[in-house]
Amino acid sequence: MKKISLLGATGSIGTQTLDIIKEHPDQFELVAMSVGKNIAKAREIAEEFKPLVLSVQEKEDAEKLMSVLTSKTKVYWGEEGIVEAACQHDADIVVNAVLGSVGLYPTLQAIEAGKTIAIANKETLVTAGHIVMDAARKHGVSLLPVDSEHSAIFQALQGERKENIEKLIITASGGSFRDRTREELVGVTVEEALNHPNWSMGAKITIDSASMMNKGLEVIEAHWLFDIEYDKIDVVLHRESIIHSMVQYHDTSVIAQLGTPDMRTAIQYALTYPTRLPRTQAKKLDLVEIGKLHFEKMNYHRFRCLAFAFDAGKVGGSMPTVLNAANEAAVAAFLNGQISFLQIEDLIEKAMQEHELIQLPELDAIRQIDRETRLNVHRFINE
Amino acid sequence: MKKISLLGATGSIGTQTLDIIKEHPDQFELVAMSVGKNIAKAREIAEEFKPLVLSVQEKEDAEKLMSVLTSKTKVYWGEEGIVEAACQHDADIVVNAVLGSVGLYPTLQAIEAGKTIAIANKETLVTAGHIVMDAARKHGVSLLPVDSEHSAIFQALQGERKENIEKLIITASGGSFRDRTREELVGVTVEEALNHPNWSMGAKITIDSASMMNKGLEVIEAHWLFDIEYDKIDVVLHRESIIHSMVQYHDTSVIAQLGTPDMRTAIQYALTYPTRLPRTQAKKLDLVEIGKLHFEKMNYHRFRCLAFAFDAGKVGGSMPTVLNAANEAAVAAFLNGQISFLQIEDLIEKAMQEHELIQLPELDAIRQIDRETRLNVHRFINE
Repeated sequence: MKKISLLGATGSIGTQTLDIIKEHPDQFELVAMSVGKNIAKAREIAEEFKPLVLSVQEKEDAEKLMSVLTSKTKVYWGEEGIVEAACQHDADIVVNAVLGSVGLYPTLQAIEAGKTIAIANKETLVTAGHIVMDAARKHGVSLLPVDSEHSAIFQALQGERKENIEKLIITASGGSFRDRTREELVGVTVEEALNHPNWSMGAKITIDSASMMNKGLEVIEAHWLFDIEYDKIDVVLHRESIIHSMVQYHDTSVIAQLGTPDMRTAIQYALTYPTRLPRTQAKKLDLVEIGKLHFEKMNYHRFRCLAFAFDAGKVGGSMPTVLNAANEAAVAAFLNGQISFLQIEDLIEKAMQEHELIQLPELDAIRQIDRETRLNVHRFINE
Repeated sequence: MKKISLLGATGSIGTQTLDIIKEHPDQFELVAMSVGKNIAKAREIAEEFKPLVLSVQEKEDAEKLMSVLTSKTKVYWGEEGIVEAACQHDADIVVNAVLGSVGLYPTLQAIEAGKTIAIANKETLVTAGHIVMDAARKHGVSLLPVDSEHSAIFQALQGERKENIEKLIITASGGSFRDRTREELVGVTVEEALNHPNWSMGAKITIDSASMMNKGLEVIEAHWLFDIEYDKIDVVLHRESIIHSMVQYHDTSVIAQLGTPDMRTAIQYALTYPTRLPRTQAKKLDLVEIGKLHFEKMNYHRFRCLAFAFDAGKVGGSMPTVLNAANEAAVAAFLNGQISFLQIEDLIEKAMQEHELIQLPELDAIRQIDRETRLNVHRFINE
């Protein structure tokens, strides 16, 4: 029985992680969870799974839950609360599925507590890859990918040797605006952007898919997770999202992981690693039914956010933090109707241009740069 | 330094194995070799690689070579000679790349001598899979696949657990007559059959590709190599030969090995396993350049030989020996202009229908059935 702490239980990855736990009640047990503000859903989950610990964002929500929960779940709140959930004594594995850079600190605490980390929160590695990976090495902790692309790479690396890797090939569906030119992106609506062709995901990540920033964050995440230089990471457009990513070895062999687009397969692999469990309710891949797989060259002029991400990754230091914070602020502004879709790129570019680089920033510096960048983006919007 | 005994050095796989040895002179050394009747090429190879042992098919050829060879190579002949090469004391690994069922006995002898076997000779496993695999288990010897398809499956199995396999998916290019109907196969010439769209191979295997018997033999080989029931082996038409085969696991994940069609990659993997070595002169896979990969349902009425192979495999016992011997005799007759292309199928079918099954045949019985089947096919032709 693997005991799971799930950070971000009400989000898209969180909900699908709960599906996996439900599918294998003899294998997995939810012992801790954190949510943001979706208190109704948090209550439902807590009543169903009866975790030992539940953490919410706000104090008043915690108090409300304490008074209504019939399970013996202890309720916490705020950053201390999420750390409490992340470090819950019984937990074997912490699934970090929170949104944005709020996942960083609890992840570090869980690493110090010796927990295996299943990481779905890109921002944790994007903003503080050097700190997180150092901590993981120091405490002998494994970081298991939950993203489909990184899970594919991780699966393609099993039984292989790192020194034989020639490059990682990350596939990109192209998101909801794949077939539009830059001119056709002027004036696109939030609703259009949220209509992803292959994957059902949260709003922020769906916008990131449309802007290709999601792929950019994945590139930086891959750099840290697999300790691979940016020059050895390729991105290829693959509209069907069937090949989830690949590893090319120096003997020219390419190992790929394929499947129907269903994030639960990657989530479950992180939970079952190094073995696998049946997914009886999932749709199996039928390549004959699909018929054709397409591959196209990535256009970095069309998808500027991806180019920014490679730039930020190569510059390193505090730059990926700026990239990520600027993107989070800009996407939020787009979702709020404050800016247009293409302004997301402009705001990120401006934030990166104005930033004074810090090499190897400590956690406090990262947090400060994160805050400042968000303020800067709001300033740019209001200028 | 890995010391290699190469059986079938002048054939297509043999020649390409020598390419690999030449590409990595610090890694590999040819210590023994066998050839059939291509004495001129055998002499060339022996002079270049200076193996300790060389075996040829005929006594007079052996004597001729002994008198002309300047290297200190010892020359042997016949079945004893090939066993001498297979069991050469220094050899770490025996590459069995001989044509047809003549590879069986030396392979068994090499297994008894504790050699790792890199197996390119399908017939060895097709005709005597139960004997070969039993011997390998008994002597703790590894059988490493050299065929692209089996190498792909083997690579896709690295780091995985057998109990998690749901099925093997073997890809088939479709051979030189892929796009022809059965009606359009009437009267095709040997030259047309030898024109394979993707792979450069020997004549016999190219005809087997056109008839899809090659895929059938691969299915039986996969059954033995990976200890997988026939119901868990699928064949999919994939005209580009880029995905060389796949393994589907019970969590719906599919792991595939991809590459440009170049047998040397699979040969080299068998020689370097469990690691890899660079292939600097090889063409790297460029999926963007390829653009599209196609997958089609296998038509077992169109490709009757594949259906025969599944039948023979499921029936088991001596039936695969009959399938293989009848096919070898029929293909030879086709290449000699004695029969038409479609008669290959008819002869195999007839040989299988007339056969009285023996369960778990011993080596002697297999050899006798092999001989009898060939005689039967010649009888059918002359009837």
